[in-house]
Amino acid sequence: MMADRARTLRIGIAGLGTVGAGLVKLVERQKELRLPGQLSVSAVSARSRTRERGVDISKFRWCDDPVELALSDDVDVVVELIGGSDGPAKRTVEAALKAGKPVVSANKALIAEHGVEMAELAEASGAHLLFEAAVGGAIPIVRALRNSLSGVVVSRVSGILNGTCNYILSEMLKTGAAYETVLAEAQRLGYAEADPYLDVSGMDAAHKVLILASIAFGARPDFSQVSVEGVSEIEAMDITLANKFDYSIKLVAEAFRSGSSVLCRVGPALVRLDHPLAQVNGALNAVVVEGEPVGRLTFTGPGAGSGPTAAAVMGDLARLFEGPATPPLGKPSAELARLIAAPNPAKDQGSFFIGAKLADRPGVFADLAEALGEEGVSIDKLIQESAGDTGAAPVAILTHPCAKAAVQRALAQVAELKITVDAPRLIRIETRG
Amino acid sequence: MMADRARTLRIGIAGLGTVGAGLVKLVERQKELRLPGQLSVSAVSARSRTRERGVDISKFRWCDDPVELALSDDVDVVVELIGGSDGPAKRTVEAALKAGKPVVSANKALIAEHGVEMAELAEASGAHLLFEAAVGGAIPIVRALRNSLSGVVVSRVSGILNGTCNYILSEMLKTGAAYETVLAEAQRLGYAEADPYLDVSGMDAAHKVLILASIAFGARPDFSQVSVEGVSEIEAMDITLANKFDYSIKLVAEAFRSGSSVLCRVGPALVRLDHPLAQVNGALNAVVVEGEPVGRLTFTGPGAGSGPTAAAVMGDLARLFEGPATPPLGKPSAELARLIAAPNPAKDQGSFFIGAKLADRPGVFADLAEALGEEGVSIDKLIQESAGDTGAAPVAILTHPCAKAAVQRALAQVAELKITVDAPRLIRIETRG
Repeated sequence: MMADRARTLRIGIAGLGTVGAGLVKLVERQKELRLPGQLSVSAVSARSRTRERGVDISKFRWCDDPVELALSDDVDVVVELIGGSDGPAKRTVEAALKAGKPVVSANKALIAEHGVEMAELAEASGAHLLFEAAVGGAIPIVRALRNSLSGVVVSRVSGILNGTCNYILSEMLKTGAAYETVLAEAQRLGYAEADPYLDVSGMDAAHKVLILASIAFGARPDFSQVSVEGVSEIEAMDITLANKFDYSIKLVAEAFRSGSSVLCRVGPALVRLDHPLAQVNGALNAVVVEGEPVGRLTFTGPGAGSGPTAAAVMGDLARLFEGPATPPLGKPSAELARLIAAPNPAKDQGSFFIGAKLADRPGVFADLAEALGEEGVSIDKLIQESAGDTGAAPVAILTHPCAKAAVQRALAQVAELKITVDAPRLIRIETRG
Repeated sequence: MMADRARTLRIGIAGLGTVGAGLVKLVERQKELRLPGQLSVSAVSARSRTRERGVDISKFRWCDDPVELALSDDVDVVVELIGGSDGPAKRTVEAALKAGKPVVSANKALIAEHGVEMAELAEASGAHLLFEAAVGGAIPIVRALRNSLSGVVVSRVSGILNGTCNYILSEMLKTGAAYETVLAEAQRLGYAEADPYLDVSGMDAAHKVLILASIAFGARPDFSQVSVEGVSEIEAMDITLANKFDYSIKLVAEAFRSGSSVLCRVGPALVRLDHPLAQVNGALNAVVVEGEPVGRLTFTGPGAGSGPTAAAVMGDLARLFEGPATPPLGKPSAELARLIAAPNPAKDQGSFFIGAKLADRPGVFADLAEALGEEGVSIDKLIQESAGDTGAAPVAILTHPCAKAAVQRALAQVAELKITVDAPRLIRIETRG
C-alpha cells in the first residue's frame, strides 16, 4: 500500500509572525512544491488580527483563542508558531495532542523544557508531534537524527545554533565595533529581537542543542542540566586578538558522551580557522554530528528567518501524508534514559583564552604572570598591545592545558590586585580538529 | 496509531563486499543504535562463499543465487549490494519488488539507469525501494530531498559526489604528483577500485547527481542526457597554477533549472578557495541544495566506505518500521516530468581555464594569444612559468566570459600550429559564489 496522496490536510495556524506569514505564502504556491498531498489553511489565530503581514488572512476563519483553533472540526493539523515554553503555546499543543490531532511546531523552548510531557501526550493519542523548524531553520537535522541517522552511534552533536549570536560575533570581527553597537545594528536589521535575551544569553542555543541531544542519544531532555553561557561579555578586542592567533570566537553548542552521561553545554569557544565551524559566518547555522561508523557529518544553512523556517514546517506537514506517527523524540518517551548531566566545573580541563585590559602601571604584567604561575597555569602564546592613549593595554593569553578552576583562581587574584581595568574574559579553546 | 516497534525484520543481503560486511557488523551491534525495531540477517548471497570478510557469515543461510535469496520465505527485506546497472543486481531487485518485498539498495547505476522501471515495480506492488546509500555515503541527502525538503522549490543541486576523484585531485595539489602516480597510490590505499573507470570517468558522479536531480526536480531520470567529463586528463600543473589564482579544481556534479529544462552535468571546474566546495578535501563528499525560500543548504560527510555506506543502509532499514512505502523518486513515477536535457554545447557560455605546455621556440606565445584573440577570447589572467630544462613552458590562462565553442576553435588552431607540446585542458570556472 502506498501512502495516501489524494488527501487534503486542513491546517490551523496558531501564531502569525514572520514564520506564519511565510507558511501562508508557501501553502499558496504549493503547486511548485513536491508535497505528497494537498494542504489548505482553514483557520488562524494570533494576538493581533489587523497587523500588516504581507499576506491576506481575511479568507481564513479567525480564532481569538488558539486552543479553540486546535479543537476546531475544520482543523486537521495544528501548526504552533506562538513560541514560549509555557502559556498559550503549551496549552494549544496539549489540547491538540490530547484530541489526537497532529502538531507541527517551531517551538524549541516548549520541546526542550516540556518535551517528555508533550511526547507522552503524542504517544498516548498516536498523534504526530513534529518540530523540525525548532532547530537549525531549514537544515533538516531533527528528522535526519531521528530517522536517517538512527543507524549511527552518535558520540557528539555540536554546532552553531543561534544566528543572532553568530551574526553579532561575525560583525564584531569584521568591523571591530563593540557588542552593544553591533547588537543595536542587528536589531535594526531584524537579525535580533527587540528583547534579545533568549538569543544572546545562549538560552535559545541551549534549547536547541538539548533537543538534538535527546534524539541523538536517546536521552530524556532535562533543561536544568544544560550549562549555558552567552556572548554579551565578549569584547571586540577578544575577537580581534583571537583572530591574530588564527582562531575565531563562536558560540558553540554541544552535547557529547562523557562516561555514562551526556554533557550538554553552550558557550563561547575559540575554534581554529580551519575548523568546520570557523567558516560559518553571519546568520548561518551549522550542525556537526560525529559517531560510529560514519565519522563526521556537517550540515550548514540559514538557521532562522521566515522562508527557511516555513520550509521546515512544510517538510513536517509533508510527513503527515506518509504514515503513522513515530515517537517525537525518536525513542518512546518511556525508554529515554536519564543521561543528560551538568558538566562538573571542577573537572573542566582544557586550554583557555584570557582577554583583558591591563592597568597602565609598572610591574602589572609581572603580577599577572605571577598570578597565573602560582596556580600552575602555563602560558602557550601571548599578545600584548600598546596601551596607546587609552591608559590600558589589551592583552590576550592562550594557556597550555590546565584546570579551568586554576585559571579562575588566578583571575580572582588578578581582580584583587586590580591588575586589569576590566573583568577578564575566560573562554575555552576547542582543541578538537 | 504509532508505528509498530515490536517487529523483527529479517534481512537477506545480496552482495558481501566491504559494505555488506559493514552492515553485518552494524546489525550485530544494533542494541547501541536507535532503530525503531529489531533486525536479523537470515540469508546472504555473494560471488564467493569463502572470501575473508572479517565477519562470520556461517550462521546465515547461504544462497548461490541472489534471486533465490530475494524470493525466500525467511527474507522480509532484500538489501542489494551487488552493484551494476544490469545483470544479477537488477534481476534481484526486480524479483523482490514484483513479490512486494521491500528493497534497500546502494546501487546508483541501477537507480540512475533504470530508476523509472524500478519505481514502477515498487509502486505497483506497494513495496519500499530505498537507496540512501547510493548517493553521498552517510550524508542523508536522498531522504532529505524526498521528504524534509519537499517544501523547497529547488533551483540547483550540486556537489562533490565521487570521493575517489576528490581524493586524487586533493593529493595532486598536495604532492604535485601526476594523475597516474596518485591514482596508483589511491588504489594501493583502497580509495580507488582496481578498475577505476566508473569513478575517474565521472560516470559514478553522473549516476548520483541524476538521482538527486530526479528527486529534487520531480524529473524522470534519463541518463543519456547527462553530460559527463572525468578527471583523467587533468595535469598536476593545472591544479598548481589554478591554486596560484586562488582556485581549486574539483569534479563538480550539478543539476539546475535552465528555462523549462533541468540540465545535468559532471565535469572538472575551478572553484574559488572561499567557495563551500573548495574546502571539501580528500574522500569527503558534499551536496549543496539551493532553492526558495531557503537559500543554500550544504551537507558534508564521508561519501563512501564500509561504515558510512552501511550506516546509510541502516537508516533505510529503520524507515521500513515507520509505515507504508512512498514513491521511490518522491513523486509517483507517472508524474515525473521529462525535464532532464543535455546541455547545449553551442550555448555554453562562461569563463574558462586553459592549461597547457608551450613549445620552447620564439613567437609561440604570440601565436597562442593571436589564436585566442581571433576567436574573440579575451584573457583575464595569465601565468607562464619558465620552461626550465623540460623544453616546454607551463601556461595557465583564465578567460573573460565567452563562448566555450570559441575557446575550442582557438584551441583547434593551437593544435594545428603545434603551439603546445601537450593537449591543452579546457576547464570551466565556477563564477557563482
